[in-house]
Amino acid sequence: MKPSDITSQDIILTGDRTTGSLHLGHYVGSLRNRVLLQDRCQQFLLLADAQALTDNMGNYLKVRDNVLQVALDYLAVGIDPAKSTIFIQSLVPELTELASYYLNLVTVSRLERNPTIKDEIKQRGYERDIPAGFLTYPAAQAADITAFKATIVPVGEDQIPMIEQTNEIVRRFNSSVDTPVLVEAKAMVPAVGARLPGIDGKAKMSKSLGNTLTLSATADEIRQAVKMMYTDPNHLRVSDPGQVEGNVVFSYLDAFHPNIELVKRLKEHYQQGGLGDSVIKQHLEECLQELLAPIRQRREEYARDPAAILAMLKQGTARARQVAAVTLSEVKAAMGLNYY
Amino acid sequence: MKPSDITSQDIILTGDRTTGSLHLGHYVGSLRNRVLLQDRCQQFLLLADAQALTDNMGNYLKVRDNVLQVALDYLAVGIDPAKSTIFIQSLVPELTELASYYLNLVTVSRLERNPTIKDEIKQRGYERDIPAGFLTYPAAQAADITAFKATIVPVGEDQIPMIEQTNEIVRRFNSSVDTPVLVEAKAMVPAVGARLPGIDGKAKMSKSLGNTLTLSATADEIRQAVKMMYTDPNHLRVSDPGQVEGNVVFSYLDAFHPNIELVKRLKEHYQQGGLGDSVIKQHLEECLQELLAPIRQRREEYARDPAAILAMLKQGTARARQVAAVTLSEVKAAMGLNYY
Repeated sequence: MKPSDITSQDIILTGDRTTGSLHLGHYVGSLRNRVLLQDRCQQFLLLADAQALTDNMGNYLKVRDNVLQVALDYLAVGIDPAKSTIFIQSLVPELTELASYYLNLVTVSRLERNPTIKDEIKQRGYERDIPAGFLTYPAAQAADITAFKATIVPVGEDQIPMIEQTNEIVRRFNSSVDTPVLVEAKAMVPAVGARLPGIDGKAKMSKSLGNTLTLSATADEIRQAVKMMYTDPNHLRVSDPGQVEGNVVFSYLDAFHPNIELVKRLKEHYQQGGLGDSVIKQHLEECLQELLAPIRQRREEYARDPAAILAMLKQGTARARQVAAVTLSEVKAAMGLNYY
Repeated sequence: MKPSDITSQDIILTGDRTTGSLHLGHYVGSLRNRVLLQDRCQQFLLLADAQALTDNMGNYLKVRDNVLQVALDYLAVGIDPAKSTIFIQSLVPELTELASYYLNLVTVSRLERNPTIKDEIKQRGYERDIPAGFLTYPAAQAADITAFKATIVPVGEDQIPMIEQTNEIVRRFNSSVDTPVLVEAKAMVPAVGARLPGIDGKAKMSKSLGNTLTLSATADEIRQAVKMMYTDPNHLRVSDPGQVEGNVVFSYLDAFHPNIELVKRLKEHYQQGGLGDSVIKQHLEECLQELLAPIRQRREEYARDPAAILAMLKQGTARARQVAAVTLSEVKAAMGLNYY
């Protein structure tokens, strides 16, 4: 499934956990696509505060405060609330109702075998102290996806098992009732190269590693980040031949520089020797400044009126509830839970 | 915690899974008490259709149809919807919302160690194929209890760990937030003898064992049941001394016969010998016919107007939602999830 395969009949469900402002990695991996796709089909964007709480109960104010921050990021990059439905997960109770029924359709051992969950349990060091809400979040995610009858869910490679889990629940539900009402979804995995490394060269960008560049970074922060950026540690003198693979500056130039020909020439020159890190970093800094300046500016403008953002979220959430309520009532009716 | 300790400040939450009509075991163990207690304090009665679905997804129409049947049983025994709030679980979405947050406050291994859950997993033969909704139902039950700020939950001895689990969640939630809003509940365990054996002498009464007598039993069914009732298998001749312990007829006489002195004399006579099973059975049949005739009659009257029952349930459910919504909004506000 590629973005170019999407038709006007498709419905996209995607979103972000509200644990921090978004960064360049989000921009390359998803935000950029959302701006394009909102003109092509229906798109629901979930501010996943309830999901973020599954492993942030000790830090709930962070989760809450970042709802506004992520919404600002969305608007700043050009997501248009008139085209995309942006909504707050915790304010759509239909999702928890759906999830509660889906929990009956998946076994504990199936959840424990889910590779994504297994990895994340390891990453978070839960061992045997896995919060139940964490183990069962595939059911909640199935609710998020199916509530909107989403046909497309953009995910990283590592999240594909989650979509398979959703589709298993869909099939099990549909085959348990007389009127199948749920819709299977396809994973849309970003093209190779859409995963940006951290500025320190680590594969994973993360705020806690301090190796990201947020969308709201100041001109100075951008300058600093590019300066610190990992290149080729063996490229000691300008005249030395340099490595392009694993060189973060080139990964970023590939991701952001509009002039593909120029980047190609820079790579060749760098590999031959005679091109200093400072030159390639200057090219990168210029294009990042150019990319982020209008985003930062729009973000500041929107941030001046938080009440307007909340009003926008309220409207989006109301629209999301409307859609989810239809699915929920179909699901409940299919199970005979329509009493009056 | 005994019924006599209950004050007007107390709030009771109790109810029944809607998997079948209620029987004499329910009457002795709980219904009788509810009729008394509805005059003493607030009482919420849950028709647990969603909970019944956790292990009845393959038989959802049974679950649905028994909502009406259990409601009829309630009314027939004298539960008054003007005093007790009778409501349908699946129509109170606030409960699933609360449960979704509680799932973050309990670990998978804690749920797996819950003795009640362990027993029920064994009873149902789930082994490793435990539906996630089944393992996590203590969180759903904590939602049912706390949504109404219940202080008292009548439960069997075997269910005490469930109340402890609820209170653990309550304490964990209250200590995670600045404003503790949840209330701990006490288990109210019925007095010894309030557990009625099956008519075949088996400890557990269950519809599937065919050893129950439903509240809607006809006069003929009552006669048959008493006739088949297990007594003392060694009491072969009237003149033989008979056993009172484990003799179902005497268990039922203890539970139902209004004349305690008479029952005492019958026991003595039976133990000495010279009292036939047919005589004690006749005493029992008379008192059961007397007890059940008006219940059956009221049940038939109510059953003539299912629309009126549904209207009553609609009203009770609306009232339950009102109360649960207040708790939910307090819980969400305490976690900062009050955006607008």
